[in-house]
Amino acid sequence: MSPDDRRPGRLRKAPENFIDAAGMRAVFDEARHGRRDFIRRAFAATGAALTAATTAPAARASAASAASVDNDAGDPNILELPEHSRGLGQPVATDGYGKPSKYEANVQRRQSPGLTQTRQASVSFAPLQSLFGIVTPSGLHFERHHQGWWDIDPAKHRLMVNGSDAAIVKTPTVYTLDELMRMPSVSRFHFIECGANTGMEWGNVAVPTCQYTHGMLSCSEFTGVPLKVLFERCGVDYKRGRYVLAEGADGSSMTRTIPMALVESGAVLVAYGQNGEMLRPENGYPLRLVVPGVQGVSWVKYLRRLEVGDMPYATKDETLHYVDLMPGGRHRQYTSLQECKSVVTTPSGGQVLLDRGYYSISGLAWSGRGKVARVDVSTDGGRNWRRAALQGPVLDRALTRFSLDWVWDGKPALVQSRAVDETGYVQPTYAQLRAVRGSRSIYHNNAIQTWWVQESGEVRNVQLAAS
Amino acid sequence: MSPDDRRPGRLRKAPENFIDAAGMRAVFDEARHGRRDFIRRAFAATGAALTAATTAPAARASAASAASVDNDAGDPNILELPEHSRGLGQPVATDGYGKPSKYEANVQRRQSPGLTQTRQASVSFAPLQSLFGIVTPSGLHFERHHQGWWDIDPAKHRLMVNGSDAAIVKTPTVYTLDELMRMPSVSRFHFIECGANTGMEWGNVAVPTCQYTHGMLSCSEFTGVPLKVLFERCGVDYKRGRYVLAEGADGSSMTRTIPMALVESGAVLVAYGQNGEMLRPENGYPLRLVVPGVQGVSWVKYLRRLEVGDMPYATKDETLHYVDLMPGGRHRQYTSLQECKSVVTTPSGGQVLLDRGYYSISGLAWSGRGKVARVDVSTDGGRNWRRAALQGPVLDRALTRFSLDWVWDGKPALVQSRAVDETGYVQPTYAQLRAVRGSRSIYHNNAIQTWWVQESGEVRNVQLAAS
Repeated sequence: MSPDDRRPGRLRKAPENFIDAAGMRAVFDEARHGRRDFIRRAFAATGAALTAATTAPAARASAASAASVDNDAGDPNILELPEHSRGLGQPVATDGYGKPSKYEANVQRRQSPGLTQTRQASVSFAPLQSLFGIVTPSGLHFERHHQGWWDIDPAKHRLMVNGSDAAIVKTPTVYTLDELMRMPSVSRFHFIECGANTGMEWGNVAVPTCQYTHGMLSCSEFTGVPLKVLFERCGVDYKRGRYVLAEGADGSSMTRTIPMALVESGAVLVAYGQNGEMLRPENGYPLRLVVPGVQGVSWVKYLRRLEVGDMPYATKDETLHYVDLMPGGRHRQYTSLQECKSVVTTPSGGQVLLDRGYYSISGLAWSGRGKVARVDVSTDGGRNWRRAALQGPVLDRALTRFSLDWVWDGKPALVQSRAVDETGYVQPTYAQLRAVRGSRSIYHNNAIQTWWVQESGEVRNVQLAAS
Repeated sequence: MSPDDRRPGRLRKAPENFIDAAGMRAVFDEARHGRRDFIRRAFAATGAALTAATTAPAARASAASAASVDNDAGDPNILELPEHSRGLGQPVATDGYGKPSKYEANVQRRQSPGLTQTRQASVSFAPLQSLFGIVTPSGLHFERHHQGWWDIDPAKHRLMVNGSDAAIVKTPTVYTLDELMRMPSVSRFHFIECGANTGMEWGNVAVPTCQYTHGMLSCSEFTGVPLKVLFERCGVDYKRGRYVLAEGADGSSMTRTIPMALVESGAVLVAYGQNGEMLRPENGYPLRLVVPGVQGVSWVKYLRRLEVGDMPYATKDETLHYVDLMPGGRHRQYTSLQECKSVVTTPSGGQVLLDRGYYSISGLAWSGRGKVARVDVSTDGGRNWRRAALQGPVLDRALTRFSLDWVWDGKPALVQSRAVDETGYVQPTYAQLRAVRGSRSIYHNNAIQTWWVQESGEVRNVQLAAS
């Protein structure tokens, strides 16, 4: 591969229903004239205040002086305490359930306009570029609905466990939520990723931001009953019962087959809790199957039934949908594991680097096979790699935050991350992935993402010509 | 100690401003006639539906049949799909920022009515009895304000670092939020507990529920810049600079002294992130000091200034307030570490056990000195102990969830938990704690909590006569 092969590749025009060139310009303008830039200008003015504070006789003067500088007011020597340093604030329990600051109103999950024909069978993406650490706030968890979401009355909801024939489950049972919540439970951090995450990139489509490229990804602390515990109480015949059909209560009748081996490992949960509280309605309240490492569609929401059978169920959502189109016109079926993958979230598409100098490159890595073992980061399109720091805790089938120090010299850069999991699996380049899977798929794209930092500081989504 | 010493002790009458006997009766009635009991009655009716479903020719009949039983409708053979299994639900991104189910509206942080004279200098408690795992949803994080909370404009907020004299900090600096957010950051899970948590129990006051006894406790994933990194950039003279004064920007001018050793360990963070998003206004948006293991008052909110000095600052909030009254009229000053402590959250005060049989006893343990090493649980007031299971991940100075299987025989029980941390420190009984600290304190009560499960199933807060 010659160095030229690492130049940013040509982008196909984004489809009408996604953000066009004008929209992309708006994204950059917003970043450029948004809070970051305002603050940089404000800081220059603040320098004077600092000098005043540290050279004044009262050298211990409070930073209130600095904090109250009104950049438009003219005379930096006239300092006034801001209202919040003088007045009486809001009382406790203003909200029994609190909300983010009004200044964070732009941090939202967002629908991709026009991606689907109805908003009841669509997606909203998590704003990965604005998040820290590994926990996704439940209010920003991505959504994928097949027939809209419901707020189901938990007092009326039931979960039925039965067998495909009478012998395969000795004691078929219908559970109430309270009965499930009295059982032994566990809490575990796991990522959930839609199998279609990064799906647009198969076609090298100019999806502009990290939110839209990778935002069908979230990570929560889930709480629930290990399905193994439930099955033992129902007397499941594990010799014959090798597959589980999970069925949701919403109108889409979402059904998926789960291999019993995953259940026997203790990993699969019948979950009611997410990030310390009950599941959110958009995420399956009051019951959802948690299938760690497996694509989101198998984490059946509004879970109402689990049937144990002796063969895969071949339901519509694993035969007609959620299959990978392969070179030669064949397709991969019953795929479900989310292979090792990573993405840099800062800097990422739509962001603007306003200055040269130090940045902390930060991103997320994950693997459906276990823990992330290492992440390497390149700023020159994969020619040189440096090992990133993994932030603890590094957990089984959970998001892992990585970071790397970087000094931007103001020249174009191609920022990439490459994750390796504890099985030794290495996240592939697009060239490697396409050699096997072609370019017609929608699902299971785990290729290395490239962000092109332009001289202007604007960051764009690209695929390298040779990758 | 004779067995009789383990009988529930007499309770002092709760003060007027807390829940009285009639209020307590209301709490139990709510638990008894609330959702749990409704579900138990509903379940009896559901048995018929299950039988129908499993004996009918279509043995694979969907659980929709069970899920849709209307107990008031009479004929269980007439089954109708619920609306949510037939209709079109809500669209994606109904909310750019989602909310809990309407059925969870009772899960709230709650003020203790009358505990303080104004609601701007008061407390709201986290509903520990309703939470799972270790993460506290940010909307339910406890609050403690000294002069109300503010939603401060992050573009105008500044953090100043200076020394008590010119030599102690070489380069005093005023930072904008963006400058801080460009620096190297870490994300870590830590508990925060108000030093006054469980304070009412010093007087053996009948605080009714776990929310009010222990609810000034929360745990989040915090993200921020290690203060050590900031201090190195400012050229702090660590030989002379052994103490840090942290100052908040709200009207209470909260100030606390932090020993430099804690900063040098890398543990102290200048945090802007909490549970993946920006801090909430009630929790100090846009900047808060995170001081792991140390009482909440030192985690200064709306952080605007850090001064490095050569001696403790002896501010009002560490001399006049937040001191422990000791036997003999003296007081403990400058205490800040939260010693090892635990509490059973299920079953806990105000809850009602509706049936005999299996329960999973569940609770939280934590230590300001490091990781929790073990938790033992007693159901007979401390006569016999069984080792509880610790749920992973067990993290440094974070909440740890424990659980233990228990079959309730319908007789009165006295449920306790006792935590041990990795330093070998054992959570004390009230007798042990009072022998050293008397009974006049408000702060730093980490004694073993007892919940009295009565024959009626009602759970009450008690202290044992001999403890």
